[in-house]
Amino acid sequence: MNAPHENHQFMPLARRARDARSSAIREILKVTLRPEMISFAGGLPAPETFPVEALRAAFDKVLREVGPASLQYSTTEGHPALRAWIAARETARGIATSEDEVLIVSGSQQGLDLIAKAFIDEGAPVLVESPSYLGALQAFELFGPEFRAIPTDADGLVPQAIDAKLAREARFAYVMPNFQNPTGRTLTVQRRVQLAAAAREHDFWLIEDDPYGELFYREAPPQSLRAFAPERTLRLGSFSKILAPGLRLGFIIGPRPMLEVLIRLKQATDLHTATLSQRAATEVLSSPLMAEHLPAIRTRYATQCAVMLEALEAHFPPDAVWTRPSGGMFIWVELPATQHGEVVDTTQLLARAIERQIAFVPGEPFFAGAAKRNSLRLSFVTVPPDRIRAGVAGLGALLRNPRG
Amino acid sequence: MNAPHENHQFMPLARRARDARSSAIREILKVTLRPEMISFAGGLPAPETFPVEALRAAFDKVLREVGPASLQYSTTEGHPALRAWIAARETARGIATSEDEVLIVSGSQQGLDLIAKAFIDEGAPVLVESPSYLGALQAFELFGPEFRAIPTDADGLVPQAIDAKLAREARFAYVMPNFQNPTGRTLTVQRRVQLAAAAREHDFWLIEDDPYGELFYREAPPQSLRAFAPERTLRLGSFSKILAPGLRLGFIIGPRPMLEVLIRLKQATDLHTATLSQRAATEVLSSPLMAEHLPAIRTRYATQCAVMLEALEAHFPPDAVWTRPSGGMFIWVELPATQHGEVVDTTQLLARAIERQIAFVPGEPFFAGAAKRNSLRLSFVTVPPDRIRAGVAGLGALLRNPRG
Repeated sequence: MNAPHENHQFMPLARRARDARSSAIREILKVTLRPEMISFAGGLPAPETFPVEALRAAFDKVLREVGPASLQYSTTEGHPALRAWIAARETARGIATSEDEVLIVSGSQQGLDLIAKAFIDEGAPVLVESPSYLGALQAFELFGPEFRAIPTDADGLVPQAIDAKLAREARFAYVMPNFQNPTGRTLTVQRRVQLAAAAREHDFWLIEDDPYGELFYREAPPQSLRAFAPERTLRLGSFSKILAPGLRLGFIIGPRPMLEVLIRLKQATDLHTATLSQRAATEVLSSPLMAEHLPAIRTRYATQCAVMLEALEAHFPPDAVWTRPSGGMFIWVELPATQHGEVVDTTQLLARAIERQIAFVPGEPFFAGAAKRNSLRLSFVTVPPDRIRAGVAGLGALLRNPRG
Repeated sequence: MNAPHENHQFMPLARRARDARSSAIREILKVTLRPEMISFAGGLPAPETFPVEALRAAFDKVLREVGPASLQYSTTEGHPALRAWIAARETARGIATSEDEVLIVSGSQQGLDLIAKAFIDEGAPVLVESPSYLGALQAFELFGPEFRAIPTDADGLVPQAIDAKLAREARFAYVMPNFQNPTGRTLTVQRRVQLAAAAREHDFWLIEDDPYGELFYREAPPQSLRAFAPERTLRLGSFSKILAPGLRLGFIIGPRPMLEVLIRLKQATDLHTATLSQRAATEVLSSPLMAEHLPAIRTRYATQCAVMLEALEAHFPPDAVWTRPSGGMFIWVELPATQHGEVVDTTQLLARAIERQIAFVPGEPFFAGAAKRNSLRLSFVTVPPDRIRAGVAGLGALLRNPRG
């Protein structure tokens, strides 16, 4: 928070607004707007994958056929046909779900805000992966939780590390089980079972955030956490990565009594999510297009991920460590100490990379507690292969010449 | 809040979620969905006024010309051309405003949520009109303010009543100066000047909520509160009543340092408002259509308001009192005691009205403190003239026969 300009009045801020961390995502989005930049920083999906023509036809159809209704206020729960489509997809995946267990939200970021509003009292313990999704930390932080980090290893969070002490009075654990942001890691079936058991044993809920689950490269990830603890899981989904993020459409699935609380809070927050967008999205999702559309995105991202992994192998220090995701949009790198034994601080590295027109996200903001300052997140989805190679080579050169 | 169903797990709720008042607006929206109902309960604009064809052409144009960009993530502040349009309109009205002083939000309800997040600490005093907009009370209440009621009379809030005691440590006064919801009243120029003076004297801010200002019947309302206290006013606007509410588009105008706080909070709340809808709305707002469209809405609402006033005169008890709005969507009625000297409780009256297929909103939920239980809000905008007459006659009959 900058100090108010002296010539301006300033209304006293609520404590939550004074304490909020700087808006790293927003600053990142700004850097990525420069066209000359090779940006591995974005969390943006590739715009070439958006079903523009299908959406154009869908908006046209909805406005022609049900214009006034699609532009009127509507119920807070969301458009019934979209809720039914989501429930049917969950059911088809083996987890019986009714339309009443689905709430439409304005992007899954809003789901995080509503969950924070509903369940985080000041000082309430909340378990998060370490590292975790930055946007979730920001949404939760406004409501003053006590973050407790669940340790992670190469396979993601370690359920055995959740003991009575860590879990004491925790309201929930926030988990991204598939192709996690920022690491790209996926939780094994065994760990999902263990996590569900830990949640039952220590009586906390699971907030499962799954924006990337559909973006698998070869095979679908293991079943949703709802399959293992349906009575204590709230599942967040998004259409940002399979349709388009600019529509701001996401959803929360969970037991009806908890949804009723979230619906009441959503009403006070924005009344409801845009009616027209919900109806148009339902049209596209229900069309045969999706059967071709999703495999095309998966192939594209798989290819670009492979190119980046190959470039990292060729250009990065041999003792750097990175993840090898089986889906999603991100690779996570941990850099070795320099030959003088110094930790490479990736926030400082970024400043020098940007001078060379290359951007990434330093690892630090993804940690609720002690950060690995030698870590960074790379996204490959909006960068063509030759520029992925050039950008990774440029970063590799910087790392070989850390003072250059 | 209902008790959790015994067969369900229930995550402990944050205190703010336990205390929240029942969602009256949501229940109202449900009743109004029944087609046989003569509903004076809605806050919904008349769907016949939505510029459906213009919006259809606009969505088509945007998706054809800038499809991928209109579907991608975008900046939290909002679409630059829409912000510029809003700034130009304010400037044309005599209050110089730059694009940087405009933030796009997902309906002005979201603006209320962001303002509450930014400025309401638990127990912080907040001044509200009595009665006030129910949705604002709901949005603020989640953050635990101490509501203090500003008295009102036939001309709206009484600035002289704001003394040092009432204003002590108040962060802001929330005011709807034009065609207020629920009363339909408009603040005179003189009272606006006095209110601005009181804000300066006692050092509080003004939250000016103006969703209805464009819906004047004969002449535009007095200037925005920003004209009188630009340095300490945050102005909320909406496109729900002049375009369509289902788009969920609104805005906040105010000094840049305060907007920066709100932008940071909006980012954590939903990243940004839907890109495509912002671009399509900009197309329609910039077209010549608006010059015909707005006068048509005004004439329609003016006519229906006149019909309702005439029907009230014909059918309501002679000592009932109601407002005579010069714009907007609502008439406010205060009922006299029965011949036995009993106050007519409009919440009880509603139950009996609904049996006769007539709906309205009882006054009680619009009061932050002590309520006038004999008051009610009537909306005339979605009901054709003959049904306005029938519905008011039906209510009049009920009032003549209070036990019937």
